[in-house]
Amino acid sequence: MLLHISTWQEIDAFLKTSKAVLIPIGSTEQHGPNGLLGTDFLCPELIAHEAQKHAEILITPPFVVGMAQHHLGFAGTISLRPSTMIQVIVDWVNSLTKHGFERIYFLNGHGGNVATINAAFSEIYASASFASRPVNFALKQRNWWELPGVQSLSEQQFPVGLGSHATAAEVAVTQAGYGVKQAAYEPKIAPTGPIYDAIDFRRRYPDGRMGSDPAQATPEKGRALIELAAAELVKDFAAFAR
Amino acid sequence: MLLHISTWQEIDAFLKTSKAVLIPIGSTEQHGPNGLLGTDFLCPELIAHEAQKHAEILITPPFVVGMAQHHLGFAGTISLRPSTMIQVIVDWVNSLTKHGFERIYFLNGHGGNVATINAAFSEIYASASFASRPVNFALKQRNWWELPGVQSLSEQQFPVGLGSHATAAEVAVTQAGYGVKQAAYEPKIAPTGPIYDAIDFRRRYPDGRMGSDPAQATPEKGRALIELAAAELVKDFAAFAR
Amino acid sequence: MLLHISTWQEIDAFLKTSKAVLIPIGSTEQHGPNGLLGTDFLCPELIAHEAQKHAEILITPPFVVGMAQHHLGFAGTISLRPSTMIQVIVDWVNSLTKHGFERIYFLNGHGGNVATINAAFSEIYASASFASRPVNFALKQRNWWELPGVQSLSEQQFPVGLGSHATAAEVAVTQAGYGVKQAAYEPKIAPTGPIYDAIDFRRRYPDGRMGSDPAQATPEKGRALIELAAAELVKDFAAFAR
Amino acid sequence: MLLHISTWQEIDAFLKTSKAVLIPIGSTEQHGPNGLLGTDFLCPELIAHEAQKHAEILITPPFVVGMAQHHLGFAGTISLRPSTMIQVIVDWVNSLTKHGFERIYFLNGHGGNVATINAAFSEIYASASFASRPVNFALKQRNWWELPGVQSLSEQQFPVGLGSHATAAEVAVTQAGYGVKQAAYEPKIAPTGPIYDAIDFRRRYPDGRMGSDPAQATPEKGRALIELAAAELVKDFAAFAR
Amino acid sequence: MLLHISTWQEIDAFLKTSKAVLIPIGSTEQHGPNGLLGTDFLCPELIAHEAQKHAEILITPPFVVGMAQHHLGFAGTISLRPSTMIQVIVDWVNSLTKHGFERIYFLNGHGGNVATINAAFSEIYASASFASRPVNFALKQRNWWELPGVQSLSEQQFPVGLGSHATAAEVAVTQAGYGVKQAAYEPKIAPTGPIYDAIDFRRRYPDGRMGSDPAQATPEKGRALIELAAAELVKDFAAFAR
Amino acid sequence: MLLHISTWQEIDAFLKTSKAVLIPIGSTEQHGPNGLLGTDFLCPELIAHEAQKHAEILITPPFVVGMAQHHLGFAGTISLRPSTMIQVIVDWVNSLTKHGFERIYFLNGHGGNVATINAAFSEIYASASFASRPVNFALKQRNWWELPGVQSLSEQQFPVGLGSHATAAEVAVTQAGYGVKQAAYEPKIAPTGPIYDAIDFRRRYPDGRMGSDPAQATPEKGRALIELAAAELVKDFAAFAR
Repeated sequence: MLLHISTWQEIDAFLKTSKAVLIPIGSTEQHGPNGLLGTDFLCPELIAHEAQKHAEILITPPFVVGMAQHHLGFAGTISLRPSTMIQVIVDWVNSLTKHGFERIYFLNGHGGNVATINAAFSEIYASASFASRPVNFALKQRNWWELPGVQSLSEQQFPVGLGSHATAAEVAVTQAGYGVKQAAYEPKIAPTGPIYDAIDFRRRYPDGRMGSDPAQATPEKGRALIELAAAELVKDFAAFAR
Repeated sequence: MLLHISTWQEIDAFLKTSKAVLIPIGSTEQHGPNGLLGTDFLCPELIAHEAQKHAEILITPPFVVGMAQHHLGFAGTISLRPSTMIQVIVDWVNSLTKHGFERIYFLNGHGGNVATINAAFSEIYASASFASRPVNFALKQRNWWELPGVQSLSEQQFPVGLGSHATAAEVAVTQAGYGVKQAAYEPKIAPTGPIYDAIDFRRRYPDGRMGSDPAQATPEKGRALIELAAAELVKDFAAFAR
Repeated sequence: MLLHISTWQEIDAFLKTSKAVLIPIGSTEQHGPNGLLGTDFLCPELIAHEAQKHAEILITPPFVVGMAQHHLGFAGTISLRPSTMIQVIVDWVNSLTKHGFERIYFLNGHGGNVATINAAFSEIYASASFASRPVNFALKQRNWWELPGVQSLSEQQFPVGLGSHATAAEVAVTQAGYGVKQAAYEPKIAPTGPIYDAIDFRRRYPDGRMGSDPAQATPEKGRALIELAAAELVKDFAAFAR
Repeated sequence: MLLHISTWQEIDAFLKTSKAVLIPIGSTEQHGPNGLLGTDFLCPELIAHEAQKHAEILITPPFVVGMAQHHLGFAGTISLRPSTMIQVIVDWVNSLTKHGFERIYFLNGHGGNVATINAAFSEIYASASFASRPVNFALKQRNWWELPGVQSLSEQQFPVGLGSHATAAEVAVTQAGYGVKQAAYEPKIAPTGPIYDAIDFRRRYPDGRMGSDPAQATPEKGRALIELAAAELVKDFAAFAR
Repeated sequence: MLLHISTWQEIDAFLKTSKAVLIPIGSTEQHGPNGLLGTDFLCPELIAHEAQKHAEILITPPFVVGMAQHHLGFAGTISLRPSTMIQVIVDWVNSLTKHGFERIYFLNGHGGNVATINAAFSEIYASASFASRPVNFALKQRNWWELPGVQSLSEQQFPVGLGSHATAAEVAVTQAGYGVKQAAYEPKIAPTGPIYDAIDFRRRYPDGRMGSDPAQATPEKGRALIELAAAELVKDFAAFAR
Repeated sequence: MLLHISTWQEIDAFLKTSKAVLIPIGSTEQHGPNGLLGTDFLCPELIAHEAQKHAEILITPPFVVGMAQHHLGFAGTISLRPSTMIQVIVDWVNSLTKHGFERIYFLNGHGGNVATINAAFSEIYASASFASRPVNFALKQRNWWELPGVQSLSEQQFPVGLGSHATAAEVAVTQAGYGVKQAAYEPKIAPTGPIYDAIDFRRRYPDGRMGSDPAQATPEKGRALIELAAAELVKDFAAFAR
C-alpha cells in the first residue's frame, strides 16, 4: 500500500489494523559510469514495492535526497547537509507519530546516510528524554543489503568487483527496474580507500566507483536480489511492526 | 530526461547543451475523500514528465514533502516546518548550481509551499548579497495551475465546485495518472474560509476539502489538463531556460 | 493607542476590552533618488497612527528592518535573512499571545516581506499543529496598498509612473509625514523586471527605482492616500479584531 | 542625521565623510506603574537625536525589541530569545559593514541586552577569526547611563529610589519626550533582588519596579539627563568614530 | 604531550614536527551500579595519556559530554542533543585546522557518540564540498575497544558478562585509574535489548547495565587493557598521522 | 565530590541532601609565553577541587572549551561560537535540572565567556517564560577572581603587571597545580587595549599577553590564591546552594 496513492481515509482505516510504516530512504548521487543517480532511493523503493505485493506494508513516498556531500564533485548529485537532514527526519517522524504510527522503518539504500539517520533518531528521542515524556514509537534503520542473505547473494553473483560504491549489486537492482545503461570504464575494478570531501573523492575515484566492476550487473541478477530482499523485508518488517 | 534515471556522465553531457533543470515540488497531504495524499507532487510530476516527451527538459526526483502543517489533523499528511524546508531548498539549489545549473525552475503543486519557497529563494540570494558575491543563476517558482490557460480550462470543466483545496482539477489530474478513488461525501460543495493551524482546519473542513466537489473529476478531464499544462510548461520553461 | 507610549497596566486594561493588536512592519531599504530609506515602515506607521485617531487600535513599535537582501547594493539598506526574520516574528507573536492577544494584524509596507511573514505564520502554527495543541489566536498580513480603494487612488494619482518599487505613492505618503527630498534622475520612468540578488538588482535598476517616476509625488497626494488607507484600515482591522 | 529619513544617495555621500553609525537599541518591556513600555529604546533614541543636533551623527531606526524574557509576565512586553537577537544583530552589522561602515556604536537602554549584544559581537568576530579574514570594523556597546557623569547626575537627582529597573532616571527621560503618566504604587521603594524567569520576576516585583521610586521623576530632570548624556555621547561617539 | 598543559609557543613548535592531534571523546553518563559517570571519557583519556608516554602524541583536553540522551533517566548523566554536538565538533575542528592540524583523531569511548561524530565529520566536509574548496585535513573516529586485540582481550578476561553498556572492560579500565566502587546488583548478567528514549531505557535496564556483570572488573584487568590499547593506539595514530 | 568519579546511585543519594552542583567553566586558549592553554578551566577546577575538600560540593567535569574567538590566531586555541556555546549550556542545564538539581553554579575562569554564559541563562529562562512555565532552579555565574578578596590578593602579589589576560595571578594558580614554564618575553609589561577579532588581537598583543608580566608568578603565590579563593567559594556556594 503506497501512502501517496491513498486517501487520508484509507490511511485512517489502515491505522486501525497496523501502526507501522516504511520509508524508502536513499540519495540522489553519482553511481559511476553505468549507475543511475537515483540508485540509492530506487533500490529500497523497488524492494519495498515488491515486498508490499506479498504483505500489508504501508510505504511512504521515497526520501530521495540524503547525505551525499562527498559526491558533489559529480554532476547531478544533490545533497543535504547532515544538520538539514536531521531536521527533515525530525519533521517526517513527528508527522507520522502524530497520526498514531508507532513503528517507523527506514529502508535505507545509502551507506552515507547511516550516521545522519541515527543522529536524527537520537535527536527525536532526546526531545522526549529531556522532557521526561514517554515515547510510544520505535524507529529503525535498515540497509537493504543487510537483510539476511542479501550480501551473500551479492557476493555469490559478483565474487570479484562487487565493490562498496556504485556496487555491481545496486546497479543490477536498478537495471531490473529501469533497464541497462552502457558505459565504458577502466580500470575494471575501481580503487578503494577512505571518504572525505568532494574534491578528494573525485581525485581518488575519478569515475565515481569505489571497488566495483558494475558492468557485471544484469537485470536478472538484480531481479534475484529484489526478490530475496523483498522476502526478507517482509519478515524483518513484520517482526518490527508487531 | 529524468535526472535520477540518468548517469552523472549523461548529466555532464547535458550541461554542455543546457543549464536549466526542473524540480517538481509538492506535498504529501490529505486531499479530501477521493484525492490522493501525493496529489501535490504527483500533479507537477505528471505534467513535467509529459512535457519532457515534447522538449528537452531535465527533471529531478520530486520534492515530495512540503509545508503542510494545516493538514496534520488528517492521517498520512507529512509536513516540514518552514524553517526546515528553507534549508532543504538551500541545499538542493546549492548542489545544482555547483554543477553549473543556472536556471532552476520549481514547478509547484501546493499553494501552501509558495511563501516558503520564495523565502528560501531570498535566503539563497541573501548569502550572495551579504557577501557581495555575484550570482550566475536564477530561481523561479511556478504553480502548475497558473500556466496560461490552465485555470480557464479548469473553470470550464468545473464551473461549480472547482474549489481551492482538493480541487476537482487536481483530483482529475491524478486520476489520469493513477486511477479513480470512490468516496462519498457531503455537502456537495465543501465550505471555504481561512487557514490557520491543524485543529482549526479540521474543524472548519471536516473531510479536508475546501470549496470543492471533486467527484466531478474524471481521468479524461485530468488528461486534458495535463496536456494543456505540459504544452504551456514547455514554452514557459524554454523562456526561462534560455 | 501606542503600545510603547503606554504602561503595562494600561495594556492590561486594554486587554479587557480588546484582544487585537497591530504591528506596522516594513523595511529599511533604498527607495530611489528621492525616497526615504525608512519608507516601508514609515508608510504603515503613518497610516496606522492616523487610523487610531479614529478608532481604538493598539499599535506596537514599528518592525523596522525586514527582508531587503536585494537592496543591499545601495547604502543604508539593512536586511534580515528570511531565516532570521522568521524567528523574530515567532518571538514577537509568542510574546503577544502570551499576554492574551488573539488577533495580530501585520500592516505591511514591503512586498519583499510577504513570503517571509507568511512562512513565519506557518512556522508558528506548525508548532501547535505538530503538538496537537489548539490555537486561540489568528495572524493576518495586509499590505497597506491592498486596502480597498488605495491602489485605485494611486493609479488615479499616478496614471503613468506609479511603479513597483520606490513607487510614486509610497514616496508621496512619506512626504506627507516627513517632507520632500529633491533629487534628479533619469530616465523619467525606471525600468522594470525580475528581482534576484543585490548585484543583479543594482545593475538592472541603477538608481533603485522599479518602474516609477516618484518626482510626481506630493505631500497632498500622500495625505489623501493616508486618509483613505486609514479609513479602510479601521474597517479591515475591526472586521479582523472582532 | 537619521538614516531612515535619508535617501540612499545621502548615505552614500555621508560615507565619504564618516564611516560611523549609531544604533539606538533597547527593549519593549514593562517599566513599572508609570513607566512606558518603550522606555528602553526611547531613552537612547531621545539622547541620540539630541546629540545629532550638535554633531554629525548618523542614527539608524531604533532596535525596539530586545532581550526581555523576565518581563514577559507583564502585559505589553515583547522579547526576543538571545539566540534570535544574536542573529538579528549579525544581520544588521553585516548590512552596515557591507556599505562601508567601520564603526558601529550601539547606544543601549536596557541592561538585559548587554550579554546578548556582546555575545553577538563575538559571533560576528568569530566568523572572521575562524576564516582568518581581517576585519576592518569595530563594534561598541555603551549603556546611556554609563556615559560620563550621567549616573552621578541621576544619583544626585534621586538620592533615594533611583533603582535598577523602571528607574526614576529613565522614567524622567521619557517624560521629557512623551509626558507624564500618573500611577499610584506601593511600597514607595520597590524591592531588589536577582532576576530569573518571568513568573519568578513578577512574584518578586509585583508592579514591575526594582528598587525604584519613579514618582520622583519629572520632565525637567529628564531633560537635564538628556542634555548631559547627549553632550557626553557626542564626545564618546567622536572618539570611537575617528 | 597534553595541549592544555602546554603553551601556545610549544604547540607552534610541535606543529613544525607533526600536524596530528588526538581528542579523547566520551560522555558523562551512568555506567551502572559500580561504574563511574565519567567512564566514557576517562577510558580514552587514560589510554591516550598512557600512549603518549611512549610516542609523541598531542592530546587535547577531553570532550567530556556527548550524546547520552537515553541515559537521562539516571542521575548525573549530562547529554548534548546531536544537533548541538555537531556544532561543537565543527567548532573544535575548525579551530584546530586553522592552526594547521591536518590529522584529527577522535579516540572515542561511547558507542552512542558514533553516529553524531560521523555526522559532524560530514557536516564539516560538506562546507568544503558545497564551496568547491579543497580540504587539507582528515578526520578519524576510533572506538578504543576496536583497537586491534582489545575486544579479544576483553572477551578473554570476561567470557561471560562483558556486556554492551557499563561493560566489565570499561569499568576495569576506570578502576585502574580511579579505584574500585563496590555496589550490589542483580541479576548477575544485565538484560540486553534495543535503545530508544530515556524512560524506556530505564524500564528495560533498571540499574543502567546492558548485558554486563561489571563486578568481575579489577584494576589489574583494566591495566592490561590500557596497556594493550595504548600500544595499539600508538601504531594506529602513527599510521593516520603520517 | 566529583560527579565523573561517582556512580549514578551516589548522585541519586547526594540529591537527597543537596540540590546544588558546580560547573568549572573556562577555555582552551593561549595564555602568553609561559601560561598554559588550559589555564582558564584549570584555575576554576583547581579552586573547586580544593574547596570540596572542605565542604560538600558536587563538581562536574570541567567545561573546557569556551568562547575564545579572539585567541584563534595563536596555536592550540579552541573556541566555540557563542551560538554553539549557548546550546551547549542549554543542554548541560537541562540535563542537570532534569535530575532535580536546583542550583547550578558556574565557576568561570574566562572573561570572554561571561556574555555568552549569561545569554545562555536567558535562553534557558526564556523557554520557561514564553511557556508560562514556573522554574524551580537558579543559575549563577561567578568569575573566580571576583570571589571576595581574591582580586585584592592578586593586586598585592602583583602590584605591577597583574594584567588582564594571561595574568600573573592565573599563571601562578596553574603553576601551583602543574608547575612552571620558562619563557622569555618582552616588553616586560604587555600592552593593553580593546578586543576584536583574532587577527587584530595578534597584531595588538604579539605574544598573547594583555597588560601582564606573568614571569612574576610563582607556585607559592598561586597556592595562596587557590586557598583564599577556595575558602571564599565554600561560602559563596553555600549561600547560593541553600
